[in-house]
Amino acid sequence: MLGSVSAGRCLGDSIITAAPIVTDVQILLNRDRLVESMETQASIGGTDDGGLHRLALSDADKSVRDWFVDQLQELGISVRVDEFGNIFGRRQGTDPDAAPVLVGSHLDSQPNGGIYDGGLGVMAALELLRTLEAEAIETRHPIEIVNWTNEEGSRFQPGLQGSGVWSGEFDLETEYDRVSDDGARLLDELERIGYRGEAPAEPTEEYEAYFELHIEQGPSLEETGNDVGVVTGVVGLSWGTVTFDGEANHAGSTPMHLRNDASVPAAELLSYIRHLPNTLGDDTVGTVGSIDIDPDSINIIPETATLTWDIRDPSDEVLARAIDRLTTEAEAAASREGVDHEANETVRTASAEFNDRCVAAVQRAADGLGYDSMRLLSGGNHDASHLNDVCDTAMVFAVSRDGKSHTPEEFTAWDDCYKSANTVANAVLSVATGDR
Amino acid sequence: MLGSVSAGRCLGDSIITAAPIVTDVQILLNRDRLVESMETQASIGGTDDGGLHRLALSDADKSVRDWFVDQLQELGISVRVDEFGNIFGRRQGTDPDAAPVLVGSHLDSQPNGGIYDGGLGVMAALELLRTLEAEAIETRHPIEIVNWTNEEGSRFQPGLQGSGVWSGEFDLETEYDRVSDDGARLLDELERIGYRGEAPAEPTEEYEAYFELHIEQGPSLEETGNDVGVVTGVVGLSWGTVTFDGEANHAGSTPMHLRNDASVPAAELLSYIRHLPNTLGDDTVGTVGSIDIDPDSINIIPETATLTWDIRDPSDEVLARAIDRLTTEAEAAASREGVDHEANETVRTASAEFNDRCVAAVQRAADGLGYDSMRLLSGGNHDASHLNDVCDTAMVFAVSRDGKSHTPEEFTAWDDCYKSANTVANAVLSVATGDR
Repeated sequence: MLGSVSAGRCLGDSIITAAPIVTDVQILLNRDRLVESMETQASIGGTDDGGLHRLALSDADKSVRDWFVDQLQELGISVRVDEFGNIFGRRQGTDPDAAPVLVGSHLDSQPNGGIYDGGLGVMAALELLRTLEAEAIETRHPIEIVNWTNEEGSRFQPGLQGSGVWSGEFDLETEYDRVSDDGARLLDELERIGYRGEAPAEPTEEYEAYFELHIEQGPSLEETGNDVGVVTGVVGLSWGTVTFDGEANHAGSTPMHLRNDASVPAAELLSYIRHLPNTLGDDTVGTVGSIDIDPDSINIIPETATLTWDIRDPSDEVLARAIDRLTTEAEAAASREGVDHEANETVRTASAEFNDRCVAAVQRAADGLGYDSMRLLSGGNHDASHLNDVCDTAMVFAVSRDGKSHTPEEFTAWDDCYKSANTVANAVLSVATGDR
Repeated sequence: MLGSVSAGRCLGDSIITAAPIVTDVQILLNRDRLVESMETQASIGGTDDGGLHRLALSDADKSVRDWFVDQLQELGISVRVDEFGNIFGRRQGTDPDAAPVLVGSHLDSQPNGGIYDGGLGVMAALELLRTLEAEAIETRHPIEIVNWTNEEGSRFQPGLQGSGVWSGEFDLETEYDRVSDDGARLLDELERIGYRGEAPAEPTEEYEAYFELHIEQGPSLEETGNDVGVVTGVVGLSWGTVTFDGEANHAGSTPMHLRNDASVPAAELLSYIRHLPNTLGDDTVGTVGSIDIDPDSINIIPETATLTWDIRDPSDEVLARAIDRLTTEAEAAASREGVDHEANETVRTASAEFNDRCVAAVQRAADGLGYDSMRLLSGGNHDASHLNDVCDTAMVFAVSRDGKSHTPEEFTAWDDCYKSANTVANAVLSVATGDR
């Protein structure tokens, strides 16, 4: 699988194709050690069905953080925890003036989620540090590993919270005051588990780059038979709801022409959203994930029907056009059935394009390792979306079997974990050893 | 409003257009007394918002039954309660061999229902007996008033239960064993409220006819400006569910062409059901009253979608064709989206045609009273549907404002209560005085 092994200097599992502190370095991580750390982290909050239940700032989150910090300290990595619980570990570079390269992801999970979402990105970064230590490879730039607080947004909303605060997108005090469904205040929980740190929750120096490995959570890599994904950006997103408001009536005694059935325009809008993407471009996706009917009785004509939309496109202009069309169709469908309607967009995030140099570093890493790769956009937001506003950023995607995530069925083969980890490691290394 | 007052013999509120015990009799009920009984029954289990919460075999049901029995006994009417709690009151006729004419409805209500659904039919029958007593009008046939147990089917399923047992459609012991949501067994509740009677819950003699006044629970009378409805039969009914079973996936990272979204065929089938009636005939109605999506999250492609159908038509053949088309479309929609599906019909009741003579008696009564009337089919089932299998049957419908029922907003103006009560009273009287 390696393109240029014979040209390299081989140190155990790692191959250095040039002298240290140069730009053309390639390493291979320790597969067994990576698998072992994946299994260990997966056991902390692991569920009987092979999934993971490790909600942000829960006891399980505290345990995995403690374990993670131990691993860094055993490696001699200096650890700092910021005011929002983000954990950083810094391995110094040889050039005191060089900006650090950041790499990581998150260790919290969805309720009954999978063991790869988030954990793989952190374990790959840890394995990179271990390999660099084991092989005594020095880099010009410092390398920092990071575990972001509450990426998932399950127990406390919003998600991407730790990276959002750190990047300046979210206000620290506002996020401290978030309350979970179980009535816990975020700051109290941070303090309870001992992870309200003292470092400022913001970049206090310039960062050279940020890399993140994450499972794809989609089927594209598997469908196309690629080993890894080179993520070139994040699509723009619109979330919203449409409520149709008609007239409840008896299903038997109300003639069809006298009905104002709220479910009918909801169904028509749902069908429209299914087919809308094809009229706009290849990359648009549109989903109705939730429908709610009231009074929801077999023999009563629905009075209200509420559906959600989730529309994404790499182009903000196309996204705006999609939402225009959707709301126009909602109005038309409501009018055809003679019902009222209200459409509300609740979230709109702009698309993000990752940095060319970082994307190229990922591409070179995959090519150098002989992995089949494809360029793709992330359909979901990641901590990298916030980091993209702070410094040059790119991502690596690992194969997700059947595209499943947020379920115990989430699965990435160890081979795919290993390949994607090698890819992000070499991308980080190439930037950390380079001089821009 | 009366066509032939001048030709009649007037006794207080009632007008007898011929000598007693002949076929051509017309009476007018006492409007104030009818309104008073309506108000009294509405106060037993009445809710603050003007509705009625009088679930079958509840304490409120016991209270209204006690009051109803008192009213009959005060009139000198002989009361019998059958084993299933159906309450009959019999006013003897002049011919000991003549079969009784039955008239009534039900006193139980939906949870937070309205005061007219059921109650109006029983109060109209009571007012008929009071008027006959007050005016000393004799009939050849006995007249029996009836209050059927548990028409609504809210607390105990199924509905139309008392009439179903009495007509032989339901098995007594099976229905005794029904358990409510609150864990009560029906027979225990019957005994608790003292309404497990001793009379057999079946017709022990031939019945001449059954008449029932009920609110329309639909908008046709109001829309057409008619005073009363002459109900010629009950439409056939099919209830069922279709479940589509696709694949849950991330809404952002799953390309449109790789989706198997269970909500899409559900929406298409819903639209199909909205338009199906127009392709079959004037009288078909089709409703999707309930949709359930799982996992029901804004950013997850729905894995399963379940919807209900409610299709009705006066022709059993048309109904069968509608269900064929519906299930064919369900299969096609599932196939287009690449999801599995399962369609289950849970209820199919045949249409019923009411007896010509009884329908004509209702029509003549309305015409004789000078009321504007229309012939129509009942879209919903009533106790009359069961009675139609026992004896000649017909129904009268009263105007329902906005067609609303099963809600405190259910409303029938006192004038419309009075007109429809006069109509059913005169229909009963014409059959009870006649010799077939």
